[in-house]
This record gives sequence, structure tokens and C-alpha cells, in this order.
Amino acid sequence: MDIFEQIESQVRSYSRSFPTVFTTAKNARLVNREGRSYIDFLAGAGTLNYGHNNDLLKQPLIDYIQADGVTHGLDMFTDAKERFLKAFNNIVMQPRGMNYKVQFTGPTGTNAVEVALKIARKAKQRSGIVSFTNGYHGCTLGAQAVTGNKGQRGGAGVSLGDVTRIPYDGYGEEEDDFMGLKLLDQMLTDPGSGVETPAGVIVEAVQGEGGLNAARMDWLKELEALCRKHDMLLIVDDIQAGCGRTGTFFSFEPSGIKPDIVTLSKSLSGYGLPFAITLMRPELDQWEPGEHNGTFRGNNLAFVTARVALKEYWQDDKFANEIQQKAEILEQRFSVIIKRFGGEYSLKGRGMMRGISTPNGDIAEQICKEAFANGLIIETSGPWSEVVKCLCPLTIPVEDLNKGLDILEAAFAKVLPEAEAKKAS
Amino acid sequence: MDIFEQIESQVRSYSRSFPTVFTTAKNARLVNREGRSYIDFLAGAGTLNYGHNNDLLKQPLIDYIQADGVTHGLDMFTDAKERFLKAFNNIVMQPRGMNYKVQFTGPTGTNAVEVALKIARKAKQRSGIVSFTNGYHGCTLGAQAVTGNKGQRGGAGVSLGDVTRIPYDGYGEEEDDFMGLKLLDQMLTDPGSGVETPAGVIVEAVQGEGGLNAARMDWLKELEALCRKHDMLLIVDDIQAGCGRTGTFFSFEPSGIKPDIVTLSKSLSGYGLPFAITLMRPELDQWEPGEHNGTFRGNNLAFVTARVALKEYWQDDKFANEIQQKAEILEQRFSVIIKRFGGEYSLKGRGMMRGISTPNGDIAEQICKEAFANGLIIETSGPWSEVVKCLCPLTIPVEDLNKGLDILEAAFAKVLPEAEAKKAS
Amino acid sequence: MDIFEQIESQVRSYSRSFPTVFTTAKNARLVNREGRSYIDFLAGAGTLNYGHNNDLLKQPLIDYIQADGVTHGLDMFTDAKERFLKAFNNIVMQPRGMNYKVQFTGPTGTNAVEVALKIARKAKQRSGIVSFTNGYHGCTLGAQAVTGNKGQRGGAGVSLGDVTRIPYDGYGEEEDDFMGLKLLDQMLTDPGSGVETPAGVIVEAVQGEGGLNAARMDWLKELEALCRKHDMLLIVDDIQAGCGRTGTFFSFEPSGIKPDIVTLSKSLSGYGLPFAITLMRPELDQWEPGEHNGTFRGNNLAFVTARVALKEYWQDDKFANEIQQKAEILEQRFSVIIKRFGGEYSLKGRGMMRGISTPNGDIAEQICKEAFANGLIIETSGPWSEVVKCLCPLTIPVEDLNKGLDILEAAFAKVLPEAEAKKAS
Amino acid sequence: MDIFEQIESQVRSYSRSFPTVFTTAKNARLVNREGRSYIDFLAGAGTLNYGHNNDLLKQPLIDYIQADGVTHGLDMFTDAKERFLKAFNNIVMQPRGMNYKVQFTGPTGTNAVEVALKIARKAKQRSGIVSFTNGYHGCTLGAQAVTGNKGQRGGAGVSLGDVTRIPYDGYGEEEDDFMGLKLLDQMLTDPGSGVETPAGVIVEAVQGEGGLNAARMDWLKELEALCRKHDMLLIVDDIQAGCGRTGTFFSFEPSGIKPDIVTLSKSLSGYGLPFAITLMRPELDQWEPGEHNGTFRGNNLAFVTARVALKEYWQDDKFANEIQQKAEILEQRFSVIIKRFGGEYSLKGRGMMRGISTPNGDIAEQICKEAFANGLIIETSGPWSEVVKCLCPLTIPVEDLNKGLDILEAAFAKVLPEAEAKKAS
Repeated sequence: MDIFEQIESQVRSYSRSFPTVFTTAKNARLVNREGRSYIDFLAGAGTLNYGHNNDLLKQPLIDYIQADGVTHGLDMFTDAKERFLKAFNNIVMQPRGMNYKVQFTGPTGTNAVEVALKIARKAKQRSGIVSFTNGYHGCTLGAQAVTGNKGQRGGAGVSLGDVTRIPYDGYGEEEDDFMGLKLLDQMLTDPGSGVETPAGVIVEAVQGEGGLNAARMDWLKELEALCRKHDMLLIVDDIQAGCGRTGTFFSFEPSGIKPDIVTLSKSLSGYGLPFAITLMRPELDQWEPGEHNGTFRGNNLAFVTARVALKEYWQDDKFANEIQQKAEILEQRFSVIIKRFGGEYSLKGRGMMRGISTPNGDIAEQICKEAFANGLIIETSGPWSEVVKCLCPLTIPVEDLNKGLDILEAAFAKVLPEAEAKKAS
Repeated sequence: MDIFEQIESQVRSYSRSFPTVFTTAKNARLVNREGRSYIDFLAGAGTLNYGHNNDLLKQPLIDYIQADGVTHGLDMFTDAKERFLKAFNNIVMQPRGMNYKVQFTGPTGTNAVEVALKIARKAKQRSGIVSFTNGYHGCTLGAQAVTGNKGQRGGAGVSLGDVTRIPYDGYGEEEDDFMGLKLLDQMLTDPGSGVETPAGVIVEAVQGEGGLNAARMDWLKELEALCRKHDMLLIVDDIQAGCGRTGTFFSFEPSGIKPDIVTLSKSLSGYGLPFAITLMRPELDQWEPGEHNGTFRGNNLAFVTARVALKEYWQDDKFANEIQQKAEILEQRFSVIIKRFGGEYSLKGRGMMRGISTPNGDIAEQICKEAFANGLIIETSGPWSEVVKCLCPLTIPVEDLNKGLDILEAAFAKVLPEAEAKKAS
Repeated sequence: MDIFEQIESQVRSYSRSFPTVFTTAKNARLVNREGRSYIDFLAGAGTLNYGHNNDLLKQPLIDYIQADGVTHGLDMFTDAKERFLKAFNNIVMQPRGMNYKVQFTGPTGTNAVEVALKIARKAKQRSGIVSFTNGYHGCTLGAQAVTGNKGQRGGAGVSLGDVTRIPYDGYGEEEDDFMGLKLLDQMLTDPGSGVETPAGVIVEAVQGEGGLNAARMDWLKELEALCRKHDMLLIVDDIQAGCGRTGTFFSFEPSGIKPDIVTLSKSLSGYGLPFAITLMRPELDQWEPGEHNGTFRGNNLAFVTARVALKEYWQDDKFANEIQQKAEILEQRFSVIIKRFGGEYSLKGRGMMRGISTPNGDIAEQICKEAFANGLIIETSGPWSEVVKCLCPLTIPVEDLNKGLDILEAAFAKVLPEAEAKKAS
Repeated sequence: MDIFEQIESQVRSYSRSFPTVFTTAKNARLVNREGRSYIDFLAGAGTLNYGHNNDLLKQPLIDYIQADGVTHGLDMFTDAKERFLKAFNNIVMQPRGMNYKVQFTGPTGTNAVEVALKIARKAKQRSGIVSFTNGYHGCTLGAQAVTGNKGQRGGAGVSLGDVTRIPYDGYGEEEDDFMGLKLLDQMLTDPGSGVETPAGVIVEAVQGEGGLNAARMDWLKELEALCRKHDMLLIVDDIQAGCGRTGTFFSFEPSGIKPDIVTLSKSLSGYGLPFAITLMRPELDQWEPGEHNGTFRGNNLAFVTARVALKEYWQDDKFANEIQQKAEILEQRFSVIIKRFGGEYSLKGRGMMRGISTPNGDIAEQICKEAFANGLIIETSGPWSEVVKCLCPLTIPVEDLNKGLDILEAAFAKVLPEAEAKKAS
């Protein structure tokens, strides 16, 4: 690993938790140079919902490359883009009664978020955005300003303005009373509050990096109502929670809300290729040509795999049902762990975006470290890195899922006595 | 093209200039659905320096996919990343006496620029950045603030602060006197100027989007000296001009300057895959782990092709010499065109990043339109879109180069009488 | 009034409520050109705590002018300044165990607030400030950013950044649970909240313009504790509520809190002359000489009258007791009015900073208009101008006080049937 | 001086240069507690154009106070305000063909500047302002952002945005070619410059704090033309240079330009009392009532003295002629000094706003210190405090003027051998 030490920036982080060189991968397995196979409960931080190097997508990808299909196409029309758009329209949008314009942003989530914020500000001619405690939206300056994470905000080096921060569902509440939304409503109604009506509100239905906080469906509905009342755009950042992670294609589907703008990335390409889009209600599509651009908006390899993924997984309910079944396994086994280790541990998240909140980041980190030693890749999230987070591929074989959960439960058992010992000392 | 009209955002721009659906591509050729072959003088806006679907890279890419090499690796160690780093170190950095840390940013140029600005601000603990008239650096909020283009800046919807704008080489000068640099020097020396010492200066050695303005080597040296004098970091954005475009791997090599930070993207992967890195002097690598992150920093397919591209093209001088020869063809043929159409036309750029400045954007646009009708893809740049810009693959066969130039010259001839006529009327 | 219509800016506001030309004034009386005498319950919006043209101050002022005492002294040492400082130290600070440095800011409240914010940011090397809903701190850009009032914020024309807005005591609470402070505490403790530790918190103990909201003493203590816990500076803006208005010299005295920074202005000169100071704990006095300056920091006429006011009114408890007695009259008579007009009316404020909240701004405005027609000058405050606000001179003769209250009660009686009628229609 | 050391903030500056306690003053003389009389070439930094405690104004002021004229009037109509407005209209505006609305801002220069910037931004619906190198406009956050002085800017503690800094007349030019204005014109014309059209340009016709830089009349005219060409508002900050300081009431009169907005303060009251106004073309007066306010906008004592000053000094040319004669004395005597001490010394300023530029701030400071030791109060200005600045009262008796100049010349003679000696060592 010399060359990494020598010339890779010390900003790298996951390679610190999993210090080995990986060579190949398949579905829920990563294999390192020495041939050791790891079960992957991280899955590209939610990018590999269909597993590593999914065979259903692999051959079409190779065929496209082999045939010299256009690889890089800026924002020009290509066959691959046309076919993706049709599939997205027919398989995702039409069955859900959705009517959005699709913008191909730069192929990273943060790009999709920047586009969402820009178009909201442009359409409403206001500069403010409301975002939530522990929201996570990306690392470029615009996205960073709506992100809550202190470490990442600190990297900006400039003042992060034009954002009002509001408590997320459950934050600081004692009685499940939608305190944050009530406060926002009051502030927007009151001309003396010092909070002006923003262009829009950006929200995750389940906060991934923020600690697997899952908003209640009623809370989302109330938020939508508030957006309508105060003429703010509702932006759902579905980059981590979307593409089936919570059991439906979009994470917000069960609530019935109709966002004005939606961002998608991570698992959208299906094969781990960089890809991101921003959906917006047609009347918001007020761009001048080229007003937002970027070199890699036409990543045609991603168009190919994204289309196949939609066709293979979302034409009927089969895959959704499969997710549901695995989500139940997850919930049940996590509940056992929580019961075993007592009141300070609690279940977080929704669907297959699940985790266990532990008393602090040290414990969670030790658990993940112990799990890795035993062949499981799993990470933490949350403001204090206190949540052990499971984002395994949705396509994970049940035996791998259970095996991984066995390793995880054993890691809890191994670490917790030590943690208790520490506390006592 | 119905689906594009129906659901793609109207922000798309290149597809307006080249309204046809492309299906396959090879080196300097793009082929549309009807089988018509176009010569490509746009080359992904500088992303395809090695041509479309370069055969030297294609097979290694397919082999890697076929063997289930890790595709998506967050920022974890992979075999593909290790081999890329070694190649970059051995082939690019060591022979040039360069000692940089490499940061894998999100795989788009604007991400690399955001990282450059952040690390400069963090290292210097100052918020200001100096950028230049007609500089172009990207579309996310931080990069947008240092970009000059009005249309794109207008899309921000918020105030773009912490940037001081200085005239680029040749801007507003009457006597080639480095006016902008003199002014900057005076302002930074004068405690009453209202311009505080910035964290750094971001500059392109040749401004691509800004109109193919090529800074003189002496100007770059003077800028470097100014950075040293006032303790500012020198950031070279080599996203468009780097990777051989001007004849050397980095565009600034002939000047001998040693930037503190360098951004690379576009042609870095060699195959048009999303990829970007930021190089920084080791002492600037002051990141906390994860302080800047992003989902697609480990685009391993790009690591594979990028490595092969370095090995195939940059281990000796052969490719550089080839670029030099084609650059001479370009310069000579452009000079003929300019001589033919008179004093309002002038040669822009350097190496194979060349163009012809025309009196206005209408003329330039008509020329490009006429060229497209005759099978040549070519675009404009510059503040008024007044420069006809040639960014053909560096690997373009000489016959394609000449054929493309024939079409271009004919387009000038076709359009200009009309332009003249218009002027007379 | 032609000349006003003709050339005075339409920004004028009080002259719209009281459209007559005043010529002379004494204590709680203003007399117009036609000789009509008005009782003044506005008192320069809290600037005339000692009444108009107080005779105890008038002769010393004339004597000083007559003797050619220095009138304008920049920030130079003058006899008048020295004597003021000694009096302020001996009469105000020492008896209260206060140890502050005194900064003579520009002679307006907003200047004192700008100084408070600057020194807090400088001392803590952080840019953020916490301010409260319906806080009012002034009209220059820094002060405006911490002010809540929408109309005034809207006048800025630029983004008002670096401020986090928190609910004031009672705002949006259902159970008197210090919701705003709890939320602030949680946000500052949580590294994912998106709210960074600010340099300081700026607060009024009673919000004057914001609607006579009086913070509870326990709330102020809790706020102070929070400032200590999170290492934030506590800034009390006592410009309107200070100088005896609530019954003690500083409005926060009954709570026992020890602010780090205090601003004073309005009634400080005692005679209505422009004057403002900022008090700061000695260790915060980290200014370079001249780092904040201004032409009129040495308004020596104000030094003279301010000194005499301190000597005449604050050397013993007599004046404080007098305020207390009048405050009781106010409270008792306002309570009668409120009881008379029902549940939608409520008592606001504290001490002689008292008002009645009405259902809306229309009603409040009609009441004030009716009062003016009958010889009483009184204004509204609050986000919807819904509070009828009494800020009469603390020195008002009891008979004038009662007479003014008679007029006010009659105005309520006159207007309310009409309001009811309107509601019914 | 104990009390000053003990409790006055260390931000004080003039009292460091002139460490004595002053008690009385008359015209160009200040007398300290020990009875020593000093000639005053500082004059309240330009606030005392009519001298200290001018007898023509003193009696009307005392009479007004004696008669209990309204002292503090918020922004209500008063007799004193009406009479001031009429005088200002009849004596200042009408004879000059000016048609402005008058806004009574808070009574300090920085308040007037904040109003100017706000109304420009509001009227043009743009946030940017152009200001000039070494411009000085005040210490509140908005004014600070357009000020050039590093020390003062540093005190802000936040990013000072929305301002583009352009070279003032003569700055960095080698050939008197209006370089700054040409650059501004080119940047505003070029859509790729990164400089958007601002709301307005703020400029001083003579930069007082910035080093007595006097713009040429042609430069002012060119600036006005540029404002018209690019639809920017022209704001002249005439706070220090106005009220007769350069020989005409407004400093810009000889150029014939017609600013859209003008700020006045300092000598406006005539007696050193806090007072400031902002003039604006009637169509710019787009304020909502109360959108900008402030407690001390109705400083009626200042209205009284300001009116008398206009009547006594500006109804005919007598006073202007007198200024002219003294300006010639100043210029002639300064020229002698400059000739005597050689090429590194040069004449700065215009009218009775004159100074001598010395090689550095140390020399200038020593000269002022030596002058003070001999009974002359005089200060420095300029970015390095390198300019010895004379702002004596316009009403100074010729014998005091000459006596002061004698002291000053002697101070040069005393200090310069030492400075030379230092240089040689």
C-alpha cells in the first residue's frame, strides 16, 4: 500500500476503515488481493443497490462498448440516452402518474443538488433555502451550505449563507408534535421573525449520512402542505434513499407527496457508474440553454446500464416484494440485537436502509472494526458516527444477508463487554 | 427525437447545435442513426484527446469488466487505483520533477475545482480567491464564483462572493504590459486598496471556454512570482488545456512555473469516462479524513483506461511530437483562412487548442452551422461566442484533420459573403 | 407642510401618524405651531425618558455652550468626556459591581450594535451571531442582519448572512418550556445540526419594536448559562429598554445576568441628543486604535447632559421608586382596558415599557389615530403593528399620565365597536 | 487622564496623537485644561469648516434651546426641520439647478452612506456596487464593504461582499489614461468578465482618508458617462469634501456632473453637531415609509445651526472667494515646503483640503508630533498614513493660518534631517 501512503491525499476515509486492496467484486461480495471474500453491507454507500457487477447489466454494458457505442456525448442526443429516457418515462414516471422534466446534471449527487437549488432559486426569484438538521446533500459549495455535517461544512473556508436550518422530524421533540414544521410555519407567517420565505425546502425522506433518521409519512405530508401554504418548492433529495432502497423506487412514495424537484444518483446507473439526474415539474424548467452545464452529463455507459436496471427490476412488483422480505429479516434480526444489548440501543431507518443507534461513536466504530476483522464491510453514520448502518445490496442473497448479520451480532457481543468495562473504569 | 422534446430539460445546448441522434463513434468520427459519419472537431469539449473509443484502451476496459474487477469503490483501495497512481507517479510526475499529493475528487471538473478552492482556503486560512476575466471553472457554486461567464453566473441565484476579478493576459492592454498583474500587485501592496491578500489565484494557461486566450509564458512566470511575493497559492485549472491538448502533458510546462495546486479532468480517463483529480503540494494536504468526499471518487473503470492512456501515450516523446506536427497543420491552415478573410479575423489559442476569432457570435455560429451541414462538428467559444474553436482529437488522422479543415474553410467562404452583405445592408 | 411633501423623502413615517408641525416641547408635552398641546406617550421612541427639554439638564447645556466648551471633539480627551466617564463609572458601574470598558461609537444605536457585533466576532474569531425572532437592532447592514423585521430587512438589497434566528421567550411555545433555548442548545451540541457555534448571541430583555415582548428572568438566566456552556458572548441590546425604562437602569438587572457586551443609546444623553456607547468586558477590548471610528463619537453636548442626568436621577433610589409607582398605574389602568375589551387583548411589556396587544394592526392603528385626534401621541409596535405601545417619559406628571390614559381608553372605546362592526360585516 | 486609561476602550485614536484634555474652543483654536491654545488644522476631520463654536451659529442655538424648541423629533415635522429644508432648497439646490429628495438618515456619515447603497440597490434591483481603491465611506457593515482601508475592513469579522473594486484616478497609471474607468467599461461590456452591472458606483471627488487624492474633472465626467452608458447610479460621497471644503458647496461642482445620489454630513450642521442627509433624484425615492429609520434622524439643534450656516455663508460668493484666497495661501506655502525638501514630497488634494505626501508614515507621523509639541494640531491620512493633511477651518484667520504653516514648516525642518540620517544609517 506504499503508493497510497506516498501520494494519495489524506482526505481518503473508507480505506482507513477497510485497509486492504480489493480486486474483484460480485453482488454482495468484495474480494481482496489475497483472495479473501468480504460480505458488503456498505455497497458503495448505497450506490450498489443491485450489487457489484450485476450480471444482468454486465453483458449489455460490454456489448455496448464492444460495438463502439458513443461513450462520451456531452449533452448531445444519443441512442443510449434516448432509450434511457424512454425507459425512465415508461417504467418509473408514467405508472406513478409523474410528470417531470429530466435534467442530466454532472454525474454526481452534489451536482444534482446544485441544479435543484439553482432552478428553485431561479424559478422563485428568491435566494433562501430551508434545510434540516442532519441533512446531507453534498460537498460542492451550494450543496454544502444545505448540509448539516460540521466536519464537511468546516471544509468550505467561506461563509455558507442563504440557508435556514430547521429541526427534522423527531429532532428535539418531546411529544412527536412536528415541532420543526410548526416553528417554520410560524416564522414564515410572522413578518418579524427574521426568516424570509425561501425559494424551497430540501429534504431527505430518510437521512442516510445523518443517522438513518426516517421521517414519518405524516410529517412529509405536513411538510408538503407547508410548502404549498407558503409557496415554497419542495425538493426531495432521493440520492441515497431512492432507487428502491426503502422498498419503493422513490423513498417518498408511501406518503403520497408530490415533490416539485427530485434528485437521483448513486444507484441510478445500477452498475456503480457515475450518473445523476434532477427531475423538476415542467413549469420549473426555466433554464436558458447551457445555463448549467458540465462535461460528463452524457455518460452513455451509465445510460445503458441504468436502462437495463429499470427493465429488469422495476417493470413489476417482484423486486419490491423481495426488498420487503429482506427488510423484514433485517428488522427482525436488528430487533433481537437491540433487545439483547439494552435500552441505549435503538432501531433506525426504514426498508433496507437500516441501522442500530449505539450510545456513542466509539462503540459503533469498534463494532464495525470487529465486523471487518471477521469479513463484513459495514460503516457508521450519524452526527457522532454513533449509528451502525446497513446498506447491503438489495439483491443480496438471503444466506449472505444472514451470514453478515451473524458477523454483526457477534461483533456487538465482542465489543460491548469491552465498552461496558471502559465505562466502569 | 420526441422523447427529448417531451421530457429532457431545455437546459441542453450541444444537441441544439447538432440536432441528430448519434449511435457509434471511433477516434475523430461520430456516426448518427442514419449512418452519416461526422468529423468531430469538438471531441467532448476536450474530453476525447485520444479520440472516441480508443482501441488501445477499449480492450483493457472490456477485460476489466469481464473479469469483475471492482467497478465502484468509493475511496477504498483497489488494484485499479493502485496501478493508476503508480503510472501517474512514474510517467507524469517523476519525469517532470513534480511532487504532489493526488486527491480523487468527485469525477467532474467542477468537483476538482471545488477541492482546489477549499484546500487553498483551508491551508491559508483566508477566504478570498483571485480569478481572471473570461476564466471558466465550472457550474457548482464554488466554481461558479470564480467563473466569468455571465450566463452561467446568472444561474446561481445567490451572491457569488469572496472573489476578486483581475484582467487576464492581454485584457484591455494597449501595450502588452501585464496590466492585470501590475494592478493586482499594487492592490495587494496597498493597504488602502480594498483588496485583501487572497488564499490563492486560479488560472487557466489557455482559456478554453473564455475564447482560446493563451497566456504568454512570461505572463505565467510573472503571475507565479506575484503569488510567491504575496504568499498566495497558485492554482492552475488544467481541466481543458491539460492532458496533452497544448502539446505537453500539462499546459503550463513550457513556462517552467510550479503551481501549488493543479486540477485535471476531461481527457484524464482517456476514454471519456468521468474522472477528475486535484494535485496539491504535500504540505497543503491538510484535510481531515472525509472532510471532502463524494460517492463516485472511485470510478475504477476510469482508473483502468487512464492508466493505459498514460502508458500508451506519455512514456516517450512520440505522441508529443505528433501533436506538434498536427498543431502546425492547424496553425498553417487557420492562418490561410484568416489571411483570406481579412483583418477582423485572428488566430487564437496554442497547440491543438486553436480557433479563429470572428467579428461576432452570429458569424461564428453561422460558420459552425454550415460546417455541420457538411459533416463537421465544431463549436464556438468566447464571451460573445465569437471564436470558432477546434478541439479535435489529438489522435485524429491527418486526412480527417485536413478534410475537417476543408469543410471549415468552405463554411467560412459560404457564410462570409452573407455576413458582408448583411453588414452592407 | 409643502416643503416636506416637495423635498423630504417618502421614507418618513412618524410624521404620517402625527401630521402636524411641532414647535416646542416640555417634559411629556409637545406643542404644535397652532399652539395645541399634546401628551407624548411616544417620547422619541424611548429617547426621552427624562422628558422633553428637561430643566435640570437644560441650564448646564446652555452654560456649556455659552462658555465655548468643546462641542465637537472626535475621540479626543475633553473635560466633558472625562466628567461623563467618571459619573458613568461611579454612579452606574461601580454600585452594580460592573467592570466594563466604554466605547464611544458613532452616536446612534445602530452604530453601537455594529460595534458589539464586530468586537464579538473579532474576540471569538467566528462570524456567526444568534439573534431572536422579532429582535430589533438597527438599520445599518450589520445590525439589519440581526433584526427580524421583514420590511426593514427587505431594504438591504443584499443577502443578510452569518445569522441564526432562534425563537424568543414565548415564541411558538405551548408550555413555557424555553423551546428556543433548548433547540439552540441541541443544535450547538449536535455536530450534524448545520448550526456552528456563533461568536455571540444578541438579545433584548424586552423587545421594543418587536411588540413589547418581555423575557422572563429565568429565561435570561438560562440564556446566559447557554452562552457560558457553548463559549458564546452574551450581548444585551439595551438601547430601548435601558436607562430606567423598565424600572432599573439596565433592563436585565433583576435577572442577575452579567452580559459580556451591552449597548446603550436613546435616553443615554438625557436630552434627546445623539449619543451611544458599547460596554464590553475588558478582555474583549481587543481593538487596534482606530479600527472602528466615526466623526461624531465625541458629541460633547451629550456628554454634558448625560452626566447631569446620571447625577440627578441615579444617585439614589428615588427615581427608580417613582418609575415603579407609575408602572403600577400603567399596569392597573391597562388591565382595566383589557378586561373591558375581552380575551383578544393582552398586556405586554414590563415597567414603563407597556402596551396592549390587539387582534390586528388595523385596530391598533385606528386606536392610535383616534388618540391623536384627542391630543395623545402614541404609536404601535409588533410584527403586525398590533400592539398599542406606551413609552411615555418616566418623568411624566401623574396627572398627564392619567389624562393620557383617559384619552387612550376612550380611543379603545370609540374604535372597538367599529372594529366589531367590521368583523360582523 | 486616569479615567480614560481605566475605562475607555483602546479603540480611541486621535487622543493618542494629541494626549491632552481640551476644555474650550473657538474658530481655529482649541484650548487645553492648562490653558495652552492650539491651532487646529484637523477641525474635527473636516467637521468644523466654520470653526469651533462659531458665534454666528451659537446664539441662535442657545436661543432655540432656551425657548424649549423641540430638541428630539424622530422624523416628525418640526418648525426647525421645515426651516432647514427651505433654506437648503433655496440656498443650495435651486441656485445650482438641483432637484433632489432629502432623506434625514441617522446623523452620522456612515448612516448616510448605508442609505445611499440601499436605495441604489432597491431602485436598480441589483446587489453589486463599484467602489474605488482608497475610498473611505464608513464603519458600519454596508459602508465598510465599500471602504478600502485594510485596518477597518479587518474589523468586520465577516466577508464583505457585493463590491467590485476599481482603480481611482491616477492609481497605477503610467500615462494618465483613466485606466480604471477603461477597465470598468470593458468589464461591464464583456459578458465573460465575471463583473456584473452593479446598482451603482460610489466615489469621492477628493479622497480624504485615502490620502487627499483629487480626481480630475475630466475623470469625473468620464465616470458619469460610464454610469449613464451602463445604467448604473452615480453616488458621490461628499461627507468630507463637501460643504465648501474644496471651494464650492459640493466638491464636484466644477466638473458639472449630476450625481444620482449625494451624501452629506460632517460640516453640514455647521456647529459640529451630528447630522447627515442623503440626497437622491426624486424617481429613486422608492422607500416604503419607515423602511430605513433610526432614532436620531430629527436632531433639531443641528437643523437650527445648519440653516443659519447656509444663510450666513452660502447666500452669495463672499465665502467661496475667501476659501479660494486661503486655498492659494495653502498651495503656495505647501509648494515652498515641497521644493525645500525635494522630489519625494508632493502636493495632494484640492481647495482647502490639502496635504503633502511624504516618503512614508513614520516621517509624516514625526512631523505631526513635532507640530503638536509646538502648538499645532494636524494629522496624517493615506494608506500608509504618509500624507500630512491640512483640514483647517475655512474660517481660520489668515494670521492663524500662517502661524500654523510656520509651525508645520518648522516641523518638516526639524524632522527631516533626522529622517535623512536614519536613511543614511
